Amino acid sequence: MEASVKSYDTNDIIYALATAWGKSAIAVVRVSGDGCIEVLSKAFSSSRRLKAAKTNTAVYGRLADPKDGLPIDDVVVTVYRDGHGYTGEEAFEVSCHGGLQVVRAVLSLLEGLGFRKALAGEFTLRAFLHGKMDLTKAEAVEELIESKGRTGQTMALNRLNGSLFKAISNIKGILVGIMSTVEVQLDYSEDEIGEDLSFPFQELEKAMDAVGRIKATYSAGRLYSQGARIVLAGPTNAGKSSLFNYFLKEERSIVSSVEGTTRDFIEAQCTIDGIPVRLYDTAGFRDLPSKDEEGQDGIEAQGMKRSRSLLEDADIILYMIGPEEDGSGAVGPDGEVPCAPHVLPDANLAADSRCIVVYSKADIVHPVQDKRKDVSKDGRKAVSVSVVTGEGFQGLCSEISRRLTQDIQVQGDDGLVIESERQRIDLERCHKALDAAMMAAKHDVPLDIISMDIQEAIEALGEITGEVTTDDILDRIFGTFCVGK
Amino acid sequence: MEASVKSYDTNDIIYALATAWGKSAIAVVRVSGDGCIEVLSKAFSSSRRLKAAKTNTAVYGRLADPKDGLPIDDVVVTVYRDGHGYTGEEAFEVSCHGGLQVVRAVLSLLEGLGFRKALAGEFTLRAFLHGKMDLTKAEAVEELIESKGRTGQTMALNRLNGSLFKAISNIKGILVGIMSTVEVQLDYSEDEIGEDLSFPFQELEKAMDAVGRIKATYSAGRLYSQGARIVLAGPTNAGKSSLFNYFLKEERSIVSSVEGTTRDFIEAQCTIDGIPVRLYDTAGFRDLPSKDEEGQDGIEAQGMKRSRSLLEDADIILYMIGPEEDGSGAVGPDGEVPCAPHVLPDANLAADSRCIVVYSKADIVHPVQDKRKDVSKDGRKAVSVSVVTGEGFQGLCSEISRRLTQDIQVQGDDGLVIESERQRIDLERCHKALDAAMMAAKHDVPLDIISMDIQEAIEALGEITGEVTTDDILDRIFGTFCVGK
Repeated sequence: MEASVKSYDTNDIIYALATAWGKSAIAVVRVSGDGCIEVLSKAFSSSRRLKAAKTNTAVYGRLADPKDGLPIDDVVVTVYRDGHGYTGEEAFEVSCHGGLQVVRAVLSLLEGLGFRKALAGEFTLRAFLHGKMDLTKAEAVEELIESKGRTGQTMALNRLNGSLFKAISNIKGILVGIMSTVEVQLDYSEDEIGEDLSFPFQELEKAMDAVGRIKATYSAGRLYSQGARIVLAGPTNAGKSSLFNYFLKEERSIVSSVEGTTRDFIEAQCTIDGIPVRLYDTAGFRDLPSKDEEGQDGIEAQGMKRSRSLLEDADIILYMIGPEEDGSGAVGPDGEVPCAPHVLPDANLAADSRCIVVYSKADIVHPVQDKRKDVSKDGRKAVSVSVVTGEGFQGLCSEISRRLTQDIQVQGDDGLVIESERQRIDLERCHKALDAAMMAAKHDVPLDIISMDIQEAIEALGEITGEVTTDDILDRIFGTFCVGK
Repeated sequence: MEASVKSYDTNDIIYALATAWGKSAIAVVRVSGDGCIEVLSKAFSSSRRLKAAKTNTAVYGRLADPKDGLPIDDVVVTVYRDGHGYTGEEAFEVSCHGGLQVVRAVLSLLEGLGFRKALAGEFTLRAFLHGKMDLTKAEAVEELIESKGRTGQTMALNRLNGSLFKAISNIKGILVGIMSTVEVQLDYSEDEIGEDLSFPFQELEKAMDAVGRIKATYSAGRLYSQGARIVLAGPTNAGKSSLFNYFLKEERSIVSSVEGTTRDFIEAQCTIDGIPVRLYDTAGFRDLPSKDEEGQDGIEAQGMKRSRSLLEDADIILYMIGPEEDGSGAVGPDGEVPCAPHVLPDANLAADSRCIVVYSKADIVHPVQDKRKDVSKDGRKAVSVSVVTGEGFQGLCSEISRRLTQDIQVQGDDGLVIESERQRIDLERCHKALDAAMMAAKHDVPLDIISMDIQEAIEALGEITGEVTTDDILDRIFGTFCVGK
């Protein structure tokens, strides 16, 4: 969505396959641009009905190539007249049969009619240019499509509904108010204004708070949109693969176990408490080598490197320990973890705050060993799990979710959460400028300097929504003046 | 489409994702069944507008789960009232955002509203049951979606347009005419009828011809729908992979070079003169072993087996010979192919009528060798090709197309071609019954026996279109009687 309007021609007719590429019952091709319905009618059997069709109506007919008269498909064309529909300009959607050959033929017909293949995001760009949505809504469209879990979906829908736009507009309103106060003091001498116009510190603080609150939701937005990486590690036969499969079954994986290109690990997607999770089973790992073993070369060393980088990038490491470890069970009769270097061969991993120790096969553990529950070497929470009975699985999920969300503010005002890096950067820029303004105001820096900071903050907000900001700031300033002055 | 109605409930509301599963701009979910719009309105923001919507109109609004009020997506619902739309019953289509999470949420909402997940072909079954299409059109829908080239697409569209239905109806009309003539003679004594009613041999012949002509199009239909298998074979460095890649580039491959699961060969799809082609590059082949080498075991033997079965199933084998073969070029100065066992090590392959000898690298062949063009050992057409200049490529395509189509009748009356095995079997059954009737009539077998054969033929045709046939035969018989008799 970072598209510069300069790289698009906005006056021609664009087309694109709007549905996924693959054999299916139907496929939908979108077309937008002035005069597109008139052009299509040349290739459409019910040409008169199409041209007469009101907006938002579906017309059935046959597409044929006007060049050779060869039929292409029986389709339903849904007509959107100027001002209606997604882009806000004259447009239509063709529902054709979802065969690959049919779709290719339809796309090739549209190309032959002189339409241009749309660039990425171009329909939404046109929607933005036609005032159908601001930039935050436009971004939410893409974020909604990319959403991987129910929570992320709800957050994106919230922005699509305008929650971010409204929040930004409110802050902008405050800042424009501050600006007009400041500008008035700049334009007139102190004598003319009197002493009742001083710097509106409270208002500025309010705006800073609001910007800060939205900004703080970014880490939550990122977590719920991008998701977390969870790596299953631990010695062979500890039950990593069983737990991996249990996750996929219980949490309804999106992609059922995709094999890594290198076959060193297996990867799958699921959600845990609404958080999209990319789960890695390092079933192919040998016991993790200590760093000084890395001197070896060849394929094995390559695999070890990949394994290590997988662990380095992980948000959570589930370190699994089976009861058979050590011959007698992973824990002593009093519940202590024996011989740390054996059970957690990589000392760094054991100390790692991302690591959750998971005792597997809880169902077959000797009663005395049950004391091991919720105990780990350094006192951090450990979890005991059985994939046979399901025991402990919910607890593990809660612990994962708790760890992932413990340091983040999950929701802002009205459930507003941002996930866009662009928006975060603009909010950062806005916040910095307001901070500078606050410092300046406190130190009695001249108002024209402060005015520049606030102007900068407003511009940053304007960039978030995509509005042109200078004009309406002027409006507000002169709007506080009396008429005729 | 062989669905028995017994296995479907036809009175409930069904739903299904109609577009391909994959991230995209939009996805479309189809719902059909009495009362479905009323039920959806509970989950739709513009509930009143939805309920009041006329058929074939698109209504914009937000879906939310009526259970917890959680928003699901902003969608466009296209309404089809009873009698309109694809199935002929009350139905709607939801265009939602094409994110996987969004689509899952929409499907789960519909399930929650009490709709049932549709079985394969169930919408078309309902269209058939509601008289929106006969069986030949219903089958054409699926055939159109499955079509792999422009020709197959046109053929399927032709059937969807009713060409087969019309042809079958015409034949049925003739047969019903014969039947009424026969039945009249059965019902009345010879005295009452007089001698002017004899067996209509000409009519029967006409019907048999028509059935035969449609039946004969099956091999063409099969070729253009199922496609042909073409295998590139020949010694290492003959230029197989270069030609393979050239095919994909020139003929716009559907799937760019899919690796075989066994890595013994590479496979891709393209079309040649409208014929869908599955192209195999046996780049991994060693020189083809003679049969007696097959005693070896292990992976290599497995690979050889697969290679051999690939050649056995091929419709065309392109046997490539490079100019460097034999050190001095593949052909002697007079154009003869030297030392057959060397160039075509498998004698069976050389004699194989499916084999086209292709001389590669035509651009670098010494002028004197150019005589080799269009010459092969046994006088069959050979082709000389250069992937650098493109020379000879069109000729090769024409030769492939000629070989594939030489023994088949490419089109029936009005461009009608069938590709359904079911239809072919029914036509076969019809033809056999008519044949029997003809034989019987010629040998003065009693008319009631002949009548049974024709009845059988009509039933076979009725099965093709899915009509109930007994009632309308009776209609025609009594329709030739005078009123009141």
